[in-house]
Parts: sequence; C-alpha cells; structure tokens
Amino acid sequence: MTNVAILGFGVVGGGVARLITDNYANVCALGGKKINIKYILDLRDFPDSPFADRIIHDYDIIANDPEIDTVIEVMGGSHPAYEFTVKALQAGKNVITSNKEVVANFGDEFLALARANGVCYRFEAAVGGGIPVISPVISCVRQNKITEIRGILNGTTNYILTKMFTLGESFENALADAQAKGYAERNPDADILGTDACRKIVILTALVTGKLVSPDTVHTEGITAIRGADVRAAERLGYSIKLVGRCIVCEDDAPYVVVAPFMIPKDEPLSTVFGVYNAVEVEGEPLGNVMFYGQGAGAGATASAVVGDLCQIMRSGTHAASPYFERIKAPRDFSGFVARHYIATEGSAEDVLRVFGDVRLLEGDGGEIFFITSPLTERELGDKLGELHRTVKADIRLLD
Amino acid sequence: MTNVAILGFGVVGGGVARLITDNYANVCALGGKKINIKYILDLRDFPDSPFADRIIHDYDIIANDPEIDTVIEVMGGSHPAYEFTVKALQAGKNVITSNKEVVANFGDEFLALARANGVCYRFEAAVGGGIPVISPVISCVRQNKITEIRGILNGTTNYILTKMFTLGESFENALADAQAKGYAERNPDADILGTDACRKIVILTALVTGKLVSPDTVHTEGITAIRGADVRAAERLGYSIKLVGRCIVCEDDAPYVVVAPFMIPKDEPLSTVFGVYNAVEVEGEPLGNVMFYGQGAGAGATASAVVGDLCQIMRSGTHAASPYFERIKAPRDFSGFVARHYIATEGSAEDVLRVFGDVRLLEGDGGEIFFITSPLTERELGDKLGELHRTVKADIRLLD
Repeated sequence: MTNVAILGFGVVGGGVARLITDNYANVCALGGKKINIKYILDLRDFPDSPFADRIIHDYDIIANDPEIDTVIEVMGGSHPAYEFTVKALQAGKNVITSNKEVVANFGDEFLALARANGVCYRFEAAVGGGIPVISPVISCVRQNKITEIRGILNGTTNYILTKMFTLGESFENALADAQAKGYAERNPDADILGTDACRKIVILTALVTGKLVSPDTVHTEGITAIRGADVRAAERLGYSIKLVGRCIVCEDDAPYVVVAPFMIPKDEPLSTVFGVYNAVEVEGEPLGNVMFYGQGAGAGATASAVVGDLCQIMRSGTHAASPYFERIKAPRDFSGFVARHYIATEGSAEDVLRVFGDVRLLEGDGGEIFFITSPLTERELGDKLGELHRTVKADIRLLD
Repeated sequence: MTNVAILGFGVVGGGVARLITDNYANVCALGGKKINIKYILDLRDFPDSPFADRIIHDYDIIANDPEIDTVIEVMGGSHPAYEFTVKALQAGKNVITSNKEVVANFGDEFLALARANGVCYRFEAAVGGGIPVISPVISCVRQNKITEIRGILNGTTNYILTKMFTLGESFENALADAQAKGYAERNPDADILGTDACRKIVILTALVTGKLVSPDTVHTEGITAIRGADVRAAERLGYSIKLVGRCIVCEDDAPYVVVAPFMIPKDEPLSTVFGVYNAVEVEGEPLGNVMFYGQGAGAGATASAVVGDLCQIMRSGTHAASPYFERIKAPRDFSGFVARHYIATEGSAEDVLRVFGDVRLLEGDGGEIFFITSPLTERELGDKLGELHRTVKADIRLLD
C-alpha cells in the first residue's frame, strides 16, 4: 500500500483523484501495490465531493505523516509550492509535480534534495501535458549526441496562430475567441508573451544538457507582434508561423535557448501541429529526428502524466532513470545566434538591396516590401537594420 | 563493467557497435558502468573492421561465458534467433532485440523465460526504429483506458504511397524508385503485402492488451491493389491513403487487429506522416491522443533504440517497467469490424443507390463511379457488394 497526498484540488488535482479512482485496479497493477489517497490539501472545502473526507488545510499534517510516501504537487505557482516540495523531500517523500514554474526555477535544488534523501522528484506533466516527453527523453534518446530539442510548447498561442492562419483572423480576434473557449485566461500574458513556453524549454534544455538556466536569461518573444500581413506573407512563401521554444546544443559550450515565433516550412512536422496541440522534437546523431505529439494541457491529459509518474515511482523508485542538472548562469549569448529572417519594411527596394545584398523582394500589403535574409547573427541583423533607415514592420526568424 | 555480445554484424549490428564506441563516455554514464563489447557473432569474418578481434562464429562461446550479461540479437529472422534467445535467457543473460519477427512470434515465451530467470527481454527497436514507442507505451500511458493503438509502421510502403500522392506515380514506378533508393528490398513482399506492419501491430497489441496473437490470424492487406484512380479519388475527397496497423480495444473482449490501407482525413496527424517516416498513435481516456513520430528504420535510428535498451537494463534491470503478455488464439472476428468504405465500381448509379442507399456518387476515371458507404461491418459490406452484381474496382476503409 502506498499513501499519497495531493496538494491542490483544482482542475488537475481533481483529474488526478478521478483517474486513480476510475482506473483503480489498472493503476495499482501498474504500480505493483494499492494506492490510498490519504489527504487532499486545499484552502477550500468540498462538501459535495466524494473526496470531502480527505480535504485538509494544514500542510504540516502531510509533511509530518510518516505513512505518506508520495506528495503530488499540482497547485501551480512558485510559492508555497517551493516550500512544500522542499519539506516533503527532506521528510523522505517522493514528489510529483505538474508545475513547470517551480521546476524551471528550482528543479536543480529539488533533484539534489531528492537524491540526498533517496527519493524521486518527477515532473512529466510539466512539459507537454499528457504527452510522454520527459520520460522518453531521459530514458530513450540521451545515448545519442543531441543537437537540438525544440517544441510547440504552449497550446493557447498555437490555437491563436492556427486561427490566424486558417481563418485569416487578426491576433486580437483570435485571442478573444481563445478566451471565450476557455483556452486562454482572462489575463493571457503568460501565454502570449512566451513566459509559459520559456519555462518549458528551460526544463527541456536541462534534460538534454544537464544545465538549468534561469527563465529570465532566455531570449523570449511572444506572438503579440504577428500581423495579418505576416500570416499572408508566410503563406505566400510556403511557411507557417509557430511559437517555438528551441535549445540548440553547441559543441562543448552553453546552449542557445530561445522562445520566439519562427517561420517553419509547411512540410516540416512541427508545421503540421495545429490548434491546442503541442509537440516536442528531438534531433540527435545517429537517431535523426523524433517527435512527440499530443494535447499539451487539460485535466485528463495532465492527470495521465502525473499518475504515470506515480506508477513509475511505485514500481521502480530510484532505480528508474532520473534527470540531474546543475545551474549555470545563462545560456549562450544570443547575439551570436544565426538564422535567416523574414523582414517586412516600409520600402525602398534600393535601400534593402544596398544593405542586404541580392535578396528576393516581394510586395506586401499597403506598400510594404518583404524579403528573407541570408543567415545572419542577431548582431549582424541589428547592424543591417540600423543601416536600413526604414521602419521595420516585422522580423521573424526562419526555422530551416 | 558489463560485457555484451552482439549477434549479427550487419547494418544494425554495425550501427550498435559504432554508437557504443562513438558515444562511449555518454553511453556508459547513462548505464552507470563501463561497457565491453566482448563478442560479435557472425558467419563472416571482418578482417578490416576495428572489431575484427571480437568476431566469433560459435554461439556457444557466448552462451557459456558467465561474463556476458547481455546479448544483443540483431540477426533478424525466426531461426536461429529463437534458439539463441532461449539459450541466453536460460543462462541468465538479458536479451535485447530489433527483430520484430521473433518478438511477434515468440515474445510471450521470451518474457516468461526472462521473468523466470530474473533478467530482462527488451525490444524497443522492433517497432518504429529509433522512435521511442515501446518504452513510453509501457511506462507512460497504460494508466489510461487505452481504446486504440495504430500506426504507420512500415517506411517502405509509406514512401511508395507518398510518391503516388505527391508525384502521381503508379504503384509499380513508385516501388521501382524505392528499390533504386534502397528503401525497398529486391523481393519487397514483406513490406508491400503488409507482413512487416502486421508483426509490428501484433507487438503493439500485446503491449496495450497483454494479449499476443499470431500474425497469421490478423486480417492483413498490402498496398498492391491501390491504383492511381484511387489516389485521385482520395485527393478529391480530402483524404490520404496510408497503410495502417490498428488495434481497437473492445470492452472485455479480444481486440480487433487489422493491417490495411486506410483513407485518413488530411487534417489527422497520421495523414501528415510522409516518406520513410513512421508514427504510432495511442488513444486513451482521459489522455486523449498522443503520437510518436520519426524514422522507422536505418542503422543509426535502430542502433539508438537498441543502445537505449542497453542503458535501461544497465541502470534499472528488472526494476524497470516490463511488458507481460499471454498468447490468445486470435483477435476478434474481423467480420464484425465496422468502418465506412470507399468503393469504386463499374457503374450504374441505380444499382449503387438501390443497394447502398442515399450515398453521394462521384464520377471517376474511365466511366467508374465511386462513393463512400455508411458505417458497415465487413459482413454487411460483403453482402451488399454481392447484391451489387458489378465489378468492384477498389474497396478501401476509412479511418475516421
């Protein structure tokens, strides 16, 4: 018998309790023993819930109960999730989380604490919702020389971009639609400014490089600057635009880490990920590229990942592969990052050709011109845009 | 230190030896100890290979060497792979294979033997080449109620179908092109008749249901009957045609298992898998659907999966999740399988409307008519086609 406590009885916590209960025999068989949800910590009471009798309001009851083997933290936010996690690990309890914020900010500390206390810290649900990503990345691909891990890591922004592409909607209308459908929150900043995707690429970077960088050191752009004119230009050029988190592993050095909209050729796998779906792609040698795809959020998908972690802990404990990463100050200096860029500008063709050389110029909406640069570092591009002396309407990197 | 023996020094065996050697520090770190490739068994000698001194020709040296912990069987074929595997497991050695034929035919016996002898039997490379499929399926999704697992499991046929769709080539020309590029063998029957995909869906079925069926009890159709006219009809209807292996899990009963060309709506993820790529999709409750995508064959990708298994065995041994399945006589009787069908027939419209009711008729090439039926069992469809008294030119199920 294993006794677990769930911290937070919101959408995800409710989904976890329901999945364990609904598939009880199956889940216990996979874990190799019976599961008892002993406590559910929440500020609220839930008198009508079938779990009403497990609801408690004092975390110390959980931390001090030696019967509790595993704490499932699905509260979100950095605090008190951080303090609760530390306390649980120090008390020799396994911790499972779906909370990407706390993993991206303190994952190195938690993993070290878990190791010191002979327990597990797992967070499959923190990236890609129900998609198995973290477990296959740490168990199945690291024997390769990983050159890049990248993904569409935020369903809300992918839904908005899909609407802009398929229906020609403006960013504002697509956002309003996402909010009406419950895919975007009333304050959508964490999604549309790239913050959420940034936390996730920080975690993926740590898995493949062993190095945890602070999210605020990552070059992060959201999707708010993408205009209808850019969508139409991308279509004409044979690209889609996706918000992509990328970690590019350089030889013997810190990785490049970036979150930004990228133009992706339409026949690339990531280009075919639509709506609220997420995908993570790994490139390695001799593996080639593999992609993991599915629903990146939602109570059911997230609960699946959390309960999957629980079964693995019950069965394999610390014998299972575990990530281990150490904090570094920052990723590689982004000014050296090389990409081709789509540039839309108020135009004179001569100016563009003078500064950017022999590029193919296309005429866009309202007298704009747009073109694709040769591969340039961020620094080189900045210099050239300075020389151009024209208002730049759009600047989107190409993923190719 | 772990001592391993590789059985078969062909494309895959060479890839395995190379990957262990090239990424030696990394692979050993993941496994937690050093690796020594002590023997490589092959009929041939390889005097110019850096592994020339490990080549042996007598399997008993391996089976009788107590220093060998793990045997990597990458010979292919049922025999002597079967006998070698049994001997290794009985001698208390872990076995890793990329050989789908032997897993599909004898996997239940090997897993039971491994369990009885306290060792591991792993076969990640047997389905989907380098794509992590088997490990995430057994470790990350089985806590759900799995309703279906399906996939594009054969790169050769997917390459041929992609050529037929994108270039309008005939089956014969596309096959010749695949042979010229080395994607299809000179005798392509195992690919184009569906045999290879059948072995793989048999393995996936066993993973999610715990039931191993014999490949020859699975309804298996290849792609040889697909005509240019069907490709053009599919395009007009908004579908692609893919060779799909499907296992549909029924309530408390044997699963439906089938390998056949299916018409897939163009916006479905499986529809966007092109060329030699493979993909496996799992549907479950509350997970939703997740997909694993990548290169389904090739020395590097396959070696990645084999070495991934080796690292997992070295680190977790029998503590890792393992599948376990038992043999059943046959999957569910296919005559009850329900699908909509695309039918092309020499036509009279009246006959079709009389037999199939109010379907939408389209005019195809050379006086043919084609249409999509309502959902019918195989038995019902057979009866209706009998009533039609017309030559049926094509019959392809829809996946929707």
